Amino acid sequence: MPPTPLRCLRCDRPTGSFDGCRSCAAEGIGVNAMPPLADLSGVDLARYPGGPWGLPTALPVTGKPVTLGEGNTPTIRLRTDPDSGRRTESTGELWLKYEGGNPTGSHKDRAMAVGVAAAVAAGADTVVAASSGNAGAAAAAYAARAGLRCVVFTNEAVPAGLRAQIDALGAERVVHPGTALERNEAMGRAVAERGWYPLTSFSVPSPGGNPYANEGYKSVAYELARDFAGRRIDAVVVPTSRADLLGGIGRGFRELTAAGLLASAPRLVAAEPAAAAPFTAALRHRDRAEQERTRVASGPTVAFSLGEESPCWQGLDALWRSGGSAVALDDEAILAEHRRLAAEGLVLEPSSAVASAVARDLVREPGALVVAMGTATGLKGLVG
Amino acid sequence: MPPTPLRCLRCDRPTGSFDGCRSCAAEGIGVNAMPPLADLSGVDLARYPGGPWGLPTALPVTGKPVTLGEGNTPTIRLRTDPDSGRRTESTGELWLKYEGGNPTGSHKDRAMAVGVAAAVAAGADTVVAASSGNAGAAAAAYAARAGLRCVVFTNEAVPAGLRAQIDALGAERVVHPGTALERNEAMGRAVAERGWYPLTSFSVPSPGGNPYANEGYKSVAYELARDFAGRRIDAVVVPTSRADLLGGIGRGFRELTAAGLLASAPRLVAAEPAAAAPFTAALRHRDRAEQERTRVASGPTVAFSLGEESPCWQGLDALWRSGGSAVALDDEAILAEHRRLAAEGLVLEPSSAVASAVARDLVREPGALVVAMGTATGLKGLVG
Repeated sequence: MPPTPLRCLRCDRPTGSFDGCRSCAAEGIGVNAMPPLADLSGVDLARYPGGPWGLPTALPVTGKPVTLGEGNTPTIRLRTDPDSGRRTESTGELWLKYEGGNPTGSHKDRAMAVGVAAAVAAGADTVVAASSGNAGAAAAAYAARAGLRCVVFTNEAVPAGLRAQIDALGAERVVHPGTALERNEAMGRAVAERGWYPLTSFSVPSPGGNPYANEGYKSVAYELARDFAGRRIDAVVVPTSRADLLGGIGRGFRELTAAGLLASAPRLVAAEPAAAAPFTAALRHRDRAEQERTRVASGPTVAFSLGEESPCWQGLDALWRSGGSAVALDDEAILAEHRRLAAEGLVLEPSSAVASAVARDLVREPGALVVAMGTATGLKGLVG
Repeated sequence: MPPTPLRCLRCDRPTGSFDGCRSCAAEGIGVNAMPPLADLSGVDLARYPGGPWGLPTALPVTGKPVTLGEGNTPTIRLRTDPDSGRRTESTGELWLKYEGGNPTGSHKDRAMAVGVAAAVAAGADTVVAASSGNAGAAAAAYAARAGLRCVVFTNEAVPAGLRAQIDALGAERVVHPGTALERNEAMGRAVAERGWYPLTSFSVPSPGGNPYANEGYKSVAYELARDFAGRRIDAVVVPTSRADLLGGIGRGFRELTAAGLLASAPRLVAAEPAAAAPFTAALRHRDRAEQERTRVASGPTVAFSLGEESPCWQGLDALWRSGGSAVALDDEAILAEHRRLAAEGLVLEPSSAVASAVARDLVREPGALVVAMGTATGLKGLVG
């Protein structure tokens, strides 16, 4: 079965490969080529069981589902006691969508479930991912589930728990000694010369992930619309690096509103660590052409799974379309929020705390309903 | 509000405390005193959202829910390829209920959500648990959520990941240098003298957990009945130590059949490590009076969260009522199954592998539908 055709999100040119739009890349802009949006007309959200495969017709993959029970994660109401010393009182509702409940402990499972199914449909025998974070573990798990070989290119900054997880899942972990650029080049060669199926991006500037895989994230929007049935969600705050999750959630909400299943899509907010905050920098420019071409320096941060130097266009698109914004926080604020979540019973990865910390400010609007994406469990980073 | 009254499961005497039935204990038998079964008449399972608090009328706690989004975990179909070299071919369906998706990564969250709510309703300011496993982390998380102080008595065998998790959640971790018996005595003193609320058992022989907390496990049965709507579940295999999970699942199925929501309850099977297998030993006796009084030696095992020397009566009750059985496996078989699950994309704690390994034999019956309880994520034990 031929794969669903892909078109550049920005210039609409058709693209047959996984390295994004080469034409926009020549302008220095990393843009993903994506399949068309799905038509959700007639879907009964109350009966949607959650997860990417709960609505298979919304996915650009027609083969057999590859699943480990991903998605359908809980949304947990957080306390919004006013900070001591602050005059303002929270009056809105703050909710955390806890993606740590996924089978490998992160939101990446939604994407890899679909990406590996696409790899199987494409006849691949080996999948490859470059990741120093949760994507590598998710790729390893779903490849194992489908019986495919998996190679994960990592660097030395991978936390011990995550490294052990990838190894336990039987993936071949290659610690590439070079720069991120050199690692990407090595992955690109493996894709071109050996026919390995890429589950993450390897071109520069990054388009932001495998387009089929990214469609798995639309299920976050479907689940939120189902769970808050009839209530207006004001904003969804998303920890953002290459904006694969941000872009996917945005597309899901667009499909929901187009089908009349949701009155209005929430504002999307990109939450970034200050050490690597291209979206925050971009949105300071007035002109979109300048926003697209933003470059920032990127440094180390406690939110280790985040960090890009240019804003992937799919993220800008999601922010523009939803009237959204971007906010950056320094490591001190991120760690303070991380402790605050733990004090409420939730141990998440620090990247997730970026989102809930940003969300706390938005929820100060009276009556606001704000959802922060808790992208992953903190268990992988606790030791080592 | 007075707590729901408790009666001994075995002799029906009322009991006001959390150390089980003292009368049966005097006979050397550890029996929990439990609240009455709930009446589920009129419940629409198709609308049950999962988790203990999805059906609050089935719980013996009337206070405010304490929740972190526990329960509603996925059930994942496992491959049942015939083993190479074996002549028999699997013809049944093997499913794994993946409790690692709970907020602290184990089934214990279902219990502690209810147990901590009971502590709040009882006016406690401090909860205490003795655990070298997942119960300590779950107690810490739910206590934090409810704003209670939490003390966890552990021993030195706690894996590093779990230890770090308990610490991150702000619990006071007390490494008790003595024997398990001395640790229990210390906990009993704290309960008696300081009024700390006990979330685990501390008397000998163990009755098998806080009775209010244990009612949280009934939700596993409700979810299975909902998810396999109309299909006959032949057996549910449960990793068993003090049989809190086994007993809770059994009670849930009894409530479902009594209300006509399920045609017949599945057979329950206790899965044990050979190094500590009181239920397997007990069921070798013909006479129930002998079964109740079984004692075995207990040694170390890779399934570190399991291990008792006498069969908690609540487990025997669940096995008797469901026509169930008990099976013990040695560490080699447990580790082989652990690797087999990882090769399919699932990294669980070794205790969970005990259940799925036992389930593989049951599923050889043509047409059988067997569920193994995957009690916890393997992430906590991967490093350290």
